[in-house]
Amino acid sequence: MLGRYYRGQDCAAARALELVGERWSLLILRDAMFRQYRRFSDFEKSLGIAPNVLAKRLESFVADGLMELHVSAGEPREYLLTAKGRALKPVIIALTVWGDSWLEPGPIDYVHPGCDGIVEQSLRCGGCGDEVAVDEIGVRLRSTLPD
Amino acid sequence: MLGRYYRGQDCAAARALELVGERWSLLILRDAMFRQYRRFSDFEKSLGIAPNVLAKRLESFVADGLMELHVSAGEPREYLLTAKGRALKPVIIALTVWGDSWLEPGPIDYVHPGCDGIVEQSLRCGGCGDEVAVDEIGVRLRSTLPD
Repeated sequence: MLGRYYRGQDCAAARALELVGERWSLLILRDAMFRQYRRFSDFEKSLGIAPNVLAKRLESFVADGLMELHVSAGEPREYLLTAKGRALKPVIIALTVWGDSWLEPGPIDYVHPGCDGIVEQSLRCGGCGDEVAVDEIGVRLRSTLPD
Repeated sequence: MLGRYYRGQDCAAARALELVGERWSLLILRDAMFRQYRRFSDFEKSLGIAPNVLAKRLESFVADGLMELHVSAGEPREYLLTAKGRALKPVIIALTVWGDSWLEPGPIDYVHPGCDGIVEQSLRCGGCGDEVAVDEIGVRLRSTLPD
């Protein structure tokens, strides 16, 4: 069986992948974020995913605080994204931007409903304010930061 | 066996995940992007990953154009990121930013080597130029775009 955890990785990206890196996870979250799907049957239809796998993913999302389960008498259960779950939108957008550019353009744009403009991902330097190109970005250990 | 493909998903994010969504893939790419690892033994040591899995991932990356294999006589083989591979940095950064905020802060900052400032991810509207909050972002089918 594939593990879900990345032991020995002191890395926020690895920790994030422990919660959302399994097969189907990010596509379920995509449907919840951008198609407003909430019900088991909606995710199942959209993804063609085995019900036991879908159930396991949704359970994990609830346990990890990415979704909340809402149960009302006579209604199908609903899985609603929390703020923590919605905060993963930039991950889906970054994957989409890359797929659009390097694989094959997909069918959607992310839009700013206020003005109908297209939402663009950018990386900016908090120091000088410049946009930073992908090949310029470096890393620094936080423990070596100047005071 | 887990499939690698997401059949029936006309979605650039799903296409991206077909190339980088398997277990360990994004962490191997992280090490190549930000630690400048190139050799099989470096990835193996860093990740504690089974050699057969690592070999399979690196082969896929070469086949999919994310890495190039460099072979010189008497030297270990080297796997170098291509521009297509390096263009995935925003995906790793988005995962890191989310993990830092919602799970546990990791040990690194992404920096702009020119001025030593911290690189920040943002989503901006290409129409009005405003920063767009996660909860504001919507989607629109490209086929319904006005001319």
